[in-house]
Amino acid sequence: MFTINNNYLKLQGSYLFSNIAKKVADYQHQNPNADMIRLGIGDVTQPLAPAIIKALHSAVDDMANAETFHGYAPDKGYDFLRNAIADNDYRNRGCDIEADEIFVSDGAKCDSGNIQEIFGPDNKIAVCDPVYPVYVDTNVMAGRTGNYNPDAQNYDGMIYMPCVEDNHFVPELPKETPNIIYLCFPNNPTGAGITRAELQEWVDYANRVGAVIIYDAAYEAYITEKDVPHSVYECKGARHCAIELHSFSKNAGFTGVRLGYTVVPKDLKCGSVSLHDLWSRRHGTKYNGAPYIVQRAGEAVYSPEGKEQLRAQVDYYMKNAKVICEGLKNAGYSVSGGINAPYVWLKTPGRLSSWEFFDELLSKANVVGTPGSGFGAHGEGYFRLSAFGTYENTVKAIERITKM
Amino acid sequence: MFTINNNYLKLQGSYLFSNIAKKVADYQHQNPNADMIRLGIGDVTQPLAPAIIKALHSAVDDMANAETFHGYAPDKGYDFLRNAIADNDYRNRGCDIEADEIFVSDGAKCDSGNIQEIFGPDNKIAVCDPVYPVYVDTNVMAGRTGNYNPDAQNYDGMIYMPCVEDNHFVPELPKETPNIIYLCFPNNPTGAGITRAELQEWVDYANRVGAVIIYDAAYEAYITEKDVPHSVYECKGARHCAIELHSFSKNAGFTGVRLGYTVVPKDLKCGSVSLHDLWSRRHGTKYNGAPYIVQRAGEAVYSPEGKEQLRAQVDYYMKNAKVICEGLKNAGYSVSGGINAPYVWLKTPGRLSSWEFFDELLSKANVVGTPGSGFGAHGEGYFRLSAFGTYENTVKAIERITKM
Repeated sequence: MFTINNNYLKLQGSYLFSNIAKKVADYQHQNPNADMIRLGIGDVTQPLAPAIIKALHSAVDDMANAETFHGYAPDKGYDFLRNAIADNDYRNRGCDIEADEIFVSDGAKCDSGNIQEIFGPDNKIAVCDPVYPVYVDTNVMAGRTGNYNPDAQNYDGMIYMPCVEDNHFVPELPKETPNIIYLCFPNNPTGAGITRAELQEWVDYANRVGAVIIYDAAYEAYITEKDVPHSVYECKGARHCAIELHSFSKNAGFTGVRLGYTVVPKDLKCGSVSLHDLWSRRHGTKYNGAPYIVQRAGEAVYSPEGKEQLRAQVDYYMKNAKVICEGLKNAGYSVSGGINAPYVWLKTPGRLSSWEFFDELLSKANVVGTPGSGFGAHGEGYFRLSAFGTYENTVKAIERITKM
Repeated sequence: MFTINNNYLKLQGSYLFSNIAKKVADYQHQNPNADMIRLGIGDVTQPLAPAIIKALHSAVDDMANAETFHGYAPDKGYDFLRNAIADNDYRNRGCDIEADEIFVSDGAKCDSGNIQEIFGPDNKIAVCDPVYPVYVDTNVMAGRTGNYNPDAQNYDGMIYMPCVEDNHFVPELPKETPNIIYLCFPNNPTGAGITRAELQEWVDYANRVGAVIIYDAAYEAYITEKDVPHSVYECKGARHCAIELHSFSKNAGFTGVRLGYTVVPKDLKCGSVSLHDLWSRRHGTKYNGAPYIVQRAGEAVYSPEGKEQLRAQVDYYMKNAKVICEGLKNAGYSVSGGINAPYVWLKTPGRLSSWEFFDELLSKANVVGTPGSGFGAHGEGYFRLSAFGTYENTVKAIERITKM
């Protein structure tokens, strides 16, 4: 008889956002006339920018003629896109990353889930707490953890690094030495930024102990402060210890378009084995390239028109973040985030648990947010609001919350 | 110090098609004026059908307006596509498959590589020989094999089922009992079909020994013979033992568009654990849905216009297959395939090895094909030609080969 991957049985219940969707659906069923405002899941609401739409139409036309038709894409991405990424996201920022160190994919979620495959089963994993669940769950699936402890809300064998008010939501170096460290900055869910000096400490630490940093830079487009780095490769020595994940979902509204990329520098090695070669092999064997049409849309992100239009889109969402932050602060809430990220992280009032506050917000303000405890034990007592709604809805939601 | 996944080091050299690409690039570098014809990699050459182009443009327009914009897709696919698949590919053929048993993805290559993740590391894998390399390599990566034996051209611990002239390229039941059996029919690379009665034997066998069949139906649109099944679910009992992989690459020319789907029936269980639940969890955790635009294109595949246009496209390629088969037969070659599949499988003349014939074809006819030995030990002495070129090039290539 065949056997299954028993590690899957360690995973906890259903996915956070499925639980939220169910609660909201139940509430709506009981209150069909409620005017719901969703500031929960990090999905964008603004349509694709005109430069992107133009590139998409043009690429579709290419596919309609034999002379300009594109079949299988190079599995690591078309040069036109890899070059645009290397120039704009790296060289222009003084980062030493070449186009052939960039692996184009169908999104950062897939990459952040798949990247662990090139590492051995015995590596010790460190994650922030609270954390984006994909880093944890994919390592559980791969057998790098023991069982789940419901009371402590953690998995045996995983290193959790608390991100709390006391450390401004930036983790301290862990006591136990990890082999692989997941860092996401600007952070989901807390919205916290990390300074270049703080990140340099992590890079130095990783090089010192022989660890790899998997750096998720999905929200870098939202950075407004100068000492907050857009890439881990702004730090010295990062080429020897860091892999970087990028998304087009948040900077260009591609949540439904699907495009991302991962950087694996050629200097990153385990003995004589190059991680670039391993990921290259993984990509070539299990992936068949992002759609040509979508890669052309990605190229347009870096065009002069694209840049201008997307800057305005990011500004639109950051105006929402300001509305949320200031509105809640004025009403006496303790809030953080929202300055270098489209997420606002607030302390639940009156010692309410995260889910109690979720229920209160849902029933009293008809606003949907995300309970902090869904991201880990140290998220308990916190709550995430997303700035990805429309401006009108955001203003209305904050009015309702502050009147609660 | 972190460790890597050492199973990757067992993998042989680089991927077959990368090797071919390198050889061709070297030849072209030395012979810049050579008029190359590529009948190697199974990539299509005909542009997307008008119905698909129309659907793509319309979906792009949807993305340009806030009212019709689509963000994150449901990770298993939009209902409009899952319903179209269930109706057209299953119910209309009398197969009992529901829409919620269909998982839409960005292509069959990814699915065929990822599906092994839900199984335990101790499963014994059986593959055809010759075989599409992804089934083997992804199980090597996951540690389900021992080392590679260069002389025998096989991995320790994997069951190889020879597909040769004597068995009409349909494998016999293996002597050693496997837990997971990969079958691809119509077959890549041999182009062989399997009859419904033959496949029923495999389904009965799998149910008897407690094995899972992973059935790759990527080429079903090319079937011309009535007793060759389009789906494994045409066989009784398949819902209890079979997973089916589908691609839009070959029936709709989506190699550069990227769309596929996998069927995991709810009756498929290991004890009380449903494989549908496991794959659902894998999909939800590591994948974020196929692009909305691409799913709308997939929907158009099943429209009346789409069906008619794609039938003509498949017929176009099958006309090429006939040109290859008949041309080579008349020239004295021993050929098979090409009747239910867009691949022709020929015996190399004069006891040449597959790679020797590759070199000869490249230098004397400037035609690129695929060496049979690249697909496994029992592919040695064979060679694959694809019918996916243009008609003009196919005719020209066969003229050149027969004059060699």
